[in-house]
Amino acid sequence: MRETYGIGRVEAFSDGVIAVAITLLVLDLRVPQSADGGSLAGRLAALWPNYLAYVISFLAIGIMWINHHAALRRLKAVDHAVLVVNLLLLLCIVALPFTTSLFASYLTAKNGGQLAAVIYAGSFFVTSFVFVAMQWLIVVRRRSLLHDPPGRRRQRAILLRGAIACPVYVVAALLGLATPYLTLAVCIALGLFYLLPIRSTE
Amino acid sequence: MRETYGIGRVEAFSDGVIAVAITLLVLDLRVPQSADGGSLAGRLAALWPNYLAYVISFLAIGIMWINHHAALRRLKAVDHAVLVVNLLLLLCIVALPFTTSLFASYLTAKNGGQLAAVIYAGSFFVTSFVFVAMQWLIVVRRRSLLHDPPGRRRQRAILLRGAIACPVYVVAALLGLATPYLTLAVCIALGLFYLLPIRSTE
Amino acid sequence: MRETYGIGRVEAFSDGVIAVAITLLVLDLRVPQSADGGSLAGRLAALWPNYLAYVISFLAIGIMWINHHAALRRLKAVDHAVLVVNLLLLLCIVALPFTTSLFASYLTAKNGGQLAAVIYAGSFFVTSFVFVAMQWLIVVRRRSLLHDPPGRRRQRAILLRGAIACPVYVVAALLGLATPYLTLAVCIALGLFYLLPIRSTE
Amino acid sequence: MRETYGIGRVEAFSDGVIAVAITLLVLDLRVPQSADGGSLAGRLAALWPNYLAYVISFLAIGIMWINHHAALRRLKAVDHAVLVVNLLLLLCIVALPFTTSLFASYLTAKNGGQLAAVIYAGSFFVTSFVFVAMQWLIVVRRRSLLHDPPGRRRQRAILLRGAIACPVYVVAALLGLATPYLTLAVCIALGLFYLLPIRSTE
Repeated sequence: MRETYGIGRVEAFSDGVIAVAITLLVLDLRVPQSADGGSLAGRLAALWPNYLAYVISFLAIGIMWINHHAALRRLKAVDHAVLVVNLLLLLCIVALPFTTSLFASYLTAKNGGQLAAVIYAGSFFVTSFVFVAMQWLIVVRRRSLLHDPPGRRRQRAILLRGAIACPVYVVAALLGLATPYLTLAVCIALGLFYLLPIRSTE
Repeated sequence: MRETYGIGRVEAFSDGVIAVAITLLVLDLRVPQSADGGSLAGRLAALWPNYLAYVISFLAIGIMWINHHAALRRLKAVDHAVLVVNLLLLLCIVALPFTTSLFASYLTAKNGGQLAAVIYAGSFFVTSFVFVAMQWLIVVRRRSLLHDPPGRRRQRAILLRGAIACPVYVVAALLGLATPYLTLAVCIALGLFYLLPIRSTE
Repeated sequence: MRETYGIGRVEAFSDGVIAVAITLLVLDLRVPQSADGGSLAGRLAALWPNYLAYVISFLAIGIMWINHHAALRRLKAVDHAVLVVNLLLLLCIVALPFTTSLFASYLTAKNGGQLAAVIYAGSFFVTSFVFVAMQWLIVVRRRSLLHDPPGRRRQRAILLRGAIACPVYVVAALLGLATPYLTLAVCIALGLFYLLPIRSTE
Repeated sequence: MRETYGIGRVEAFSDGVIAVAITLLVLDLRVPQSADGGSLAGRLAALWPNYLAYVISFLAIGIMWINHHAALRRLKAVDHAVLVVNLLLLLCIVALPFTTSLFASYLTAKNGGQLAAVIYAGSFFVTSFVFVAMQWLIVVRRRSLLHDPPGRRRQRAILLRGAIACPVYVVAALLGLATPYLTLAVCIALGLFYLLPIRSTE
């Protein structure tokens, strides 16, 4: 028999990791050194990519937390496989402050902006992909662990809602090859989309 | 029908984020390099704005946590809108260690002190404003999610208590245009006010 | 009537803050730059004050967490005063990684070692003092909030056990005026004392 | 009589500490300065030891969390000795981001790679050793605190599963004396082994 665990500590640990990761984004809002040339206003204004990236990544990780929350509460218990996939998902989420920082640092640089944009969108693609894999594991392969196993149609709706982000991030990455500003625009649009209320038909 | 969630994980995640944000304030208490000139005592004394800003911001965020706690425990459940507004509130709170660091770095600088003071008080104004918006959403628009929906007079009292900080922070920001020390004084006074016990008339 | 709150979120928030503060101690274990002169072994060995300070402060904060845990579980509920004193206690605890870092940086320096030692022991004195004040507030002034209000003798035992650290830290600070190594020795001894099992006579 | 505590806050605090420690690993994914020479792609590629070390340490700490979780849920309550050993275990876990950073910084350096590898594997050895000690304390010496005290054979299986990592990390450390790449290979293999599902025979 497969050993299972209660979900209380999985939620607590995941909440902790995501909470720290989202808060570490603030470390990239740097205070300009007073020794630097120019007025403070000018130097702060030059940091606009950092502020924008902070907001986008904060909302993106926040939305992932909301979805993670929704995914786990379907479960009565977790087994080793769910724990491992959840760990991989957290591994991806924790790396997002790094790719955000990279994107913010190179958005307005002469070189490297395209690559940084591709890595930024790519990191969100991988994270979304692992999230969909976890959803699939939960609603398709671990039906016995669910409070209320969904039917075929419902399964597909759950997977689709998560999966929709994947191709969008691929597009965002590809557009980044042209200019990182397009990547930025797509990521902002996607964030706004997810912030909208869900008309649930459940 | 609108989908709702239990408040356990929202509280846990919010607690985590606020706990990390408040603790990151310590990163701005910098250890002077031993290579710097002057005695250690002198160099530590020169960092007084950092110590003061640490205390003020710690108490301000701590008070927000107490109020956040009081706001959420009215709720039986949360919906997507509450989650999103809560996320925006956390986005503001997480940025406070940055504006604190900025204020501390420029308070005694020749230039930039006024701007840093305006940004500091401004960031607390925005955070308070979003908090009041969340209170309004909860006690006015989501009455069906409350354990014990308050009457008109009680609603107004709840909103007023939160809203009172908003004009004070506006004044603190405007006074910062004259000198950042006035901003400091107003923020200290407001912190002390909130630390006083509430004579609850409920 | 005084408004009270459940202790669940107070514990969760305090746990979060203390957990982050204790973990931030690792930031002071610095990796020597490969560009620095000398062998890696020599450069790591020169950082021994950092390793020692990490261990001492980790254990000291850990013991505070154990005691904090013991203090809060006496309570059925908390009121505004307990929340405020708890916040002041957290403010002190969060500053400990800073004073630890200061002590580690100056222990072997030519100048500043004494001052850093006094500040280090002093920060633990203040934290212990606030902790005793919280204990006093809980077991003497908020008896109505306790699960099982202790008698006179028991009250004194609880307060004494917490208070014992205060004069020890004062001695550690005073000895630091002679040499920081004595401060170090006293702090190690106190840590070991608290790690010993309590022969409870309750 | 020995005083005991509920395990709720021990779990919450441990979860918090491990969550912060695992997330701090991201701080070692550094953004190359745009002022550095060479293309961004080249400079990111040169940081491959950081990426690899991030993944290995994240998974290793994550697996420790899973095991910690499994160890604590056997307990109905904890006493002072369990709290102290748990604190020592957390002390080791929190130091892992430091040894990871050290290993990543020196893996490809001309000097210091061997020492850094020995320290890296050694820190995981010590952590595993303390974990086994905690397991032994729980399942052998504190049987009265367990929900369901295991028999002799079961005890041995629990201890063996944890203990297996110890000699492997010793081997990894010794191989590091030859070349740090062997240490890396052993640590990767061990991580993959633990990620595999457990065929539980309970």
